[in-house]
Amino acid sequence: MSSNPYGGIEAGGTKFSCAIGTSPGDIQQIIHIPTTTPSETLSKVVEFFKNNGPIESLGLAAFGPIEINKKSPNYGHLTSTPKEGWRGFDLLGYLKEKLNISIYLETDVQSALRAEHLLGAGQGIDNLLYITVGGGIGGASLVNGHLLEGLMHQEIGHMFIPKLEEDKSFDGVCHFHNDCWEGLSSGPSIETRWGKSGEDLGIDHNAWELEAKYLAYGIVNALLVTMPERIIVGGGVMKNEGLIDKVRLNIYKMLNGYIDLPSLTNLEALEKYIVLPSLGSSSGILGALMLARSES
Amino acid sequence: MSSNPYGGIEAGGTKFSCAIGTSPGDIQQIIHIPTTTPSETLSKVVEFFKNNGPIESLGLAAFGPIEINKKSPNYGHLTSTPKEGWRGFDLLGYLKEKLNISIYLETDVQSALRAEHLLGAGQGIDNLLYITVGGGIGGASLVNGHLLEGLMHQEIGHMFIPKLEEDKSFDGVCHFHNDCWEGLSSGPSIETRWGKSGEDLGIDHNAWELEAKYLAYGIVNALLVTMPERIIVGGGVMKNEGLIDKVRLNIYKMLNGYIDLPSLTNLEALEKYIVLPSLGSSSGILGALMLARSES
Repeated sequence: MSSNPYGGIEAGGTKFSCAIGTSPGDIQQIIHIPTTTPSETLSKVVEFFKNNGPIESLGLAAFGPIEINKKSPNYGHLTSTPKEGWRGFDLLGYLKEKLNISIYLETDVQSALRAEHLLGAGQGIDNLLYITVGGGIGGASLVNGHLLEGLMHQEIGHMFIPKLEEDKSFDGVCHFHNDCWEGLSSGPSIETRWGKSGEDLGIDHNAWELEAKYLAYGIVNALLVTMPERIIVGGGVMKNEGLIDKVRLNIYKMLNGYIDLPSLTNLEALEKYIVLPSLGSSSGILGALMLARSES
Repeated sequence: MSSNPYGGIEAGGTKFSCAIGTSPGDIQQIIHIPTTTPSETLSKVVEFFKNNGPIESLGLAAFGPIEINKKSPNYGHLTSTPKEGWRGFDLLGYLKEKLNISIYLETDVQSALRAEHLLGAGQGIDNLLYITVGGGIGGASLVNGHLLEGLMHQEIGHMFIPKLEEDKSFDGVCHFHNDCWEGLSSGPSIETRWGKSGEDLGIDHNAWELEAKYLAYGIVNALLVTMPERIIVGGGVMKNEGLIDKVRLNIYKMLNGYIDLPSLTNLEALEKYIVLPSLGSSSGILGALMLARSES
């Protein structure tokens, strides 16, 4: 039995976080590397693990879309990402070749779900939906304690939702679908629609009423398809004070009593049903470490 | 070991089908009873099984919403159904009291999925989505061979989808949400919008282009959330000749290459990915029988 620690990578569109530790409570090293080109970014990632190793194995929490089907010849390749230079890149293959250790792969959203389920706002909830609203919208589900995956990982951000009358002139920002959920409700959509970022709009701006309605549409849809016992909604956009309350209120109105269960029958119950994450921005990297530990 | 056959009930909004048999290939008795009031309908159901018994156990495939959580005090009760006289009715309790045998419960859509998975268009596909478009829209998913259930069964028909410009004046027919997916795309929505039933419209009516777009929106949403390996779309509305082809074409256009996988990259592949059921209207009652057999 080895006494080496585990490694974790959260590969994101803006930065790669790399950590080494034996458990979530024992992170020995952590660095953040800006995401530029694959070769520039990954040479620094490899250097970090080579200089601070050896590690037992590595958990890789990757932005997507990424091929997670182990039977596919493209397993571990990024697919239709709009991220410059990364489309089609063999992320897993590159790291395996350079580091020559076991690497376990899931999406960054799946890792965040894993961490929130084991340590955070979803503890003990085996039917759990985690949604992140930031540069895009992503989601991951646990069903009876197992990750929901089929043909590939979930892509809930690209659902189609109603476009609001007062937003008719806005085209949406999704490179593939224009005004899908992510195209209407991600951080970049807020910035494009209002001419400044969500942080700079102020909490009284009417942007947030619109945002809350759009978020509620997508959350209700994902709820009706997966029927989770709790929904965690995180990501940078959700840091805006009071937004979660507006989202809950809209969900309550939209469901209109159709789901006749105690978790959803009043706003007080919804405060326990639709919650913010409790691990903040560290959930992805913690989940990646825990993936390595659980698979080794 | 008993040599008694099994019983199956498909409890629908228009009729209750009751069958007795040892397997799907050996149905010994079957009757159809119109759905009127609970007492009138169910006294005939009970009479059928009493006169033709004994049976080993009973599978109950019920219309919904129905409480399927065994831990709930309302287990087996119909909940927010708009069906006159049935709201809140303890369907499972009534049958258990009168028949005094083991009864296994799932939704009619789950039973249809079960039958199509074991005998029909979804054989060998363990990540499978079944959708039925008729008096309402319902869906059920297998994830790694297990039914997707959490807080309750899935309710995909009530997702919110974009409303088409040319349909702006139509309010939708859902009693809870007006213009949710079911409110815009179920059989009753077609009849209300055009003034006659789908069957009477003729296959060249432009109703079908609209219907195909709406169905594609909801199917794409359910696809992105559950990522099945195959989707079966059945129900009365899908019997309209050529509709499935129009639906496939719209799904293809809407996805716009985002899901970069062989199953979805061209229309020929989509013909195998999105299919009609192969068991027709008998899938519900066959699934109910198979539920009884598998649980006994």
